[in-house]
Amino acid sequence: MRALLIENALVAGMRSADDLHPAGAVWAVDGVIQALGREARSAAANAFSRGEAVETVDAEGLWLFPGFVQTHIHLCQTLLRNGPDDLQLLPWLRTHVWPGEAAHDEETLFLSARLGLAELAAGGTTAILDMGTVRHTDAIFRAAEASGLRVTSGNALMDDPSTNPPELFAETEDALAEGERLLARWHGGAGGRLRFAWCPRFAVSCTDRILREAASRARAQGVLVHTHASENHDEIDLVKARSGRANIEHLRDLGIGGPTTVLAHVIHTNEAERRLLAADGTAVAHCPSSNLKLASGICPVPDYLSRGIRVTLGADGAPCNDRLDPFSEMRHAALLQKIAAGPAALTAWQVVRMATAEGAAALGLGDVCGTIEVGKRADLVLLDPSSGFARPVSWRDDPYGPVVFSFDRGNVVETRVDGEVVFHRDRRPARALAPTAGEIEAAAGRLRERKTGTGRREAALPLEEGT
Amino acid sequence: MRALLIENALVAGMRSADDLHPAGAVWAVDGVIQALGREARSAAANAFSRGEAVETVDAEGLWLFPGFVQTHIHLCQTLLRNGPDDLQLLPWLRTHVWPGEAAHDEETLFLSARLGLAELAAGGTTAILDMGTVRHTDAIFRAAEASGLRVTSGNALMDDPSTNPPELFAETEDALAEGERLLARWHGGAGGRLRFAWCPRFAVSCTDRILREAASRARAQGVLVHTHASENHDEIDLVKARSGRANIEHLRDLGIGGPTTVLAHVIHTNEAERRLLAADGTAVAHCPSSNLKLASGICPVPDYLSRGIRVTLGADGAPCNDRLDPFSEMRHAALLQKIAAGPAALTAWQVVRMATAEGAAALGLGDVCGTIEVGKRADLVLLDPSSGFARPVSWRDDPYGPVVFSFDRGNVVETRVDGEVVFHRDRRPARALAPTAGEIEAAAGRLRERKTGTGRREAALPLEEGT
Repeated sequence: MRALLIENALVAGMRSADDLHPAGAVWAVDGVIQALGREARSAAANAFSRGEAVETVDAEGLWLFPGFVQTHIHLCQTLLRNGPDDLQLLPWLRTHVWPGEAAHDEETLFLSARLGLAELAAGGTTAILDMGTVRHTDAIFRAAEASGLRVTSGNALMDDPSTNPPELFAETEDALAEGERLLARWHGGAGGRLRFAWCPRFAVSCTDRILREAASRARAQGVLVHTHASENHDEIDLVKARSGRANIEHLRDLGIGGPTTVLAHVIHTNEAERRLLAADGTAVAHCPSSNLKLASGICPVPDYLSRGIRVTLGADGAPCNDRLDPFSEMRHAALLQKIAAGPAALTAWQVVRMATAEGAAALGLGDVCGTIEVGKRADLVLLDPSSGFARPVSWRDDPYGPVVFSFDRGNVVETRVDGEVVFHRDRRPARALAPTAGEIEAAAGRLRERKTGTGRREAALPLEEGT
Repeated sequence: MRALLIENALVAGMRSADDLHPAGAVWAVDGVIQALGREARSAAANAFSRGEAVETVDAEGLWLFPGFVQTHIHLCQTLLRNGPDDLQLLPWLRTHVWPGEAAHDEETLFLSARLGLAELAAGGTTAILDMGTVRHTDAIFRAAEASGLRVTSGNALMDDPSTNPPELFAETEDALAEGERLLARWHGGAGGRLRFAWCPRFAVSCTDRILREAASRARAQGVLVHTHASENHDEIDLVKARSGRANIEHLRDLGIGGPTTVLAHVIHTNEAERRLLAADGTAVAHCPSSNLKLASGICPVPDYLSRGIRVTLGADGAPCNDRLDPFSEMRHAALLQKIAAGPAALTAWQVVRMATAEGAAALGLGDVCGTIEVGKRADLVLLDPSSGFARPVSWRDDPYGPVVFSFDRGNVVETRVDGEVVFHRDRRPARALAPTAGEIEAAAGRLRERKTGTGRREAALPLEEGT
């Protein structure tokens, strides 16, 4: 039995804006929260009196939140960080991301995932939805297993020979078979921490058949579907030219939509598409840094929320950010709506909720994490308002504004998944997963050599630029 | 004689985009750069051979940049951090910032400035242009003197009884006399690190007479004029209603403009105003986080640059940010233009240049700091690309993209002004200036008590909301 008591923290349970408990306490046994507050202290006292070992964290002066959930990540791209910074989506994919992904071998992909997971843990993220690349997806799950984080991932489906580079392409049946193999190998692994999702890259990369198969298999298997949608006008125009349909409608025609579907970005949508998203319960993964970096636009988050569409947060891949930092995403999400929709369009509370409970619900983990309550796993982040320069915090009665606007990763004390420490600011071992600077640059160098070694950086990527 | 050798760093001199020196070296004596590269090493070797003491920093693997220059800061507002986050400029001033400033005494203002300066040093900022509040401005200069930073500040001129709260108001002659006193007391102090600037708050707060006096005295005295301009539509409408003129034209009518004038924000300007800014050589202090937080808008930076208008960067005050972090400002400045003006509208190089050399030039410190070159002061920031999660950096031939997009304050190793360490990540003493968490909250509590203690939070601020 692993018993854990965290006491004396301001506990922000995130069930509601006033779910705030000064000098709160959390009691977890074997990674599951069993009691809160006074009952947590009683349970711990009983365990002590029985002579049982209890890990006790005195969190005086600290703030305890549910671990952050990021619903759109590309661990395979972490090694592609700090690439070109002046391109829109399609040329950026063609010239940097796709050749970079194609250059991966099992070893570089494992390192890329380790680096990303170490960064996510250091920023307080406990659960992610990740899109893999076409090959070597076992490397992502191996790194996820070792990291201790809650990871849902799958191989990227890219089966249309007319739009994908030959180096980053898998035939429909091969891609589906690889998905089935990964599902059988990893789904439910590591005590349920690891899960498989069907990940068609985006409508442009996929045949109608694979989109339909991904949707129907996901439904039958009870797993998620994750894809990109309506990020960029050129992408939308390509889909329109191919299908004659608006992107969200096209995806839905093929079965993609509903509460077990997470669509990344969803910036440029028409009224009919928004109604579909709301009616279906489809979740949106909002990625504000990425949407700025690739000049994609501002996601109409307040409008979506007013329609009841679930909106969550993600950092996307490292090369369009170039961080995997929930604090940057929360801050951008909050700030952007102020110029797009007015200073009160999206509250700090709503933003933190997107980064926790809403993210967990979108991942089908609403009973597992995303809030601090009895019965859920102890996926937690402990924050120190005295680190760095976030004080004073006493102008407000709630902690949400400071977390969104003044906190950064320097405020993270420790991150736990299933009650286990996956990051602690003072303990190097918890970050052993992170590769060294030398390993990172050497691996990036290998990708660069292989990528440019083809001698046909552009020609290898037949996808035409949009209008 | 204080001799300093920093060697083996990648030195980014910021004179041009290719002013990059791998394994570079900087030699400074008594805070002035005397030699670079091979000559720096020779000079140090000669000093060693003469048995002279030389502080030597082996910066292998690190990046050396000119210290960041922030051209719009309110040290008096640092204690007002994490206030309301859903207001536009005028109601935010009326309900939070002005009552908060009015509640300062000498002690709380000193602490507010200490906190801000410690944060600035920790983020690699070496020089700022600061706007004080109406009273107790000596406290800001005392903190600046102790901090080691290069600080230009002045009392905020707010002499129009119809638009300012009685608690935060000074009669025209009193305000001018206070400015003269501060100029005499502080300008040129601490070996030239401290300077006075005339700081009319904004046209709305000022009589024409004080604007005209500030401009003419500044010109005669060779000091800067610093004010806010054209941040918000309501502000602009108020100026228009009072003067019948566009804001920038109104200011210029009264003499405010030209290369020794720094205007904060300057978001909403017409063609004639932009022509004036360019013709006069007036500098703009762009504050992107603040402009988002207060829902002010996006400053048309690429257009200004295309006209030859000097654009610089600043964090503004803590309550509209809520950080004083040049990395946040660089990142926001770069990202915002991608959605406003296209993915290549503003390069990472241009953004870092705004945060260094352009800022120094705007402050009249173009011969003093802002680049790394012989004859300038050793105002430097040493960055560690291996800290945190900024790697890989090897996809690019230059360091500007990583600094703008992936670095944060966790990458700062040390900050020096005049060659002296004002922050070092491993040395607590260098941060002794920062108040403790308890001191910060206690001081904020005192402001809060005094502020709400008036019992007329709104009524004390007669400024009417704009149309």
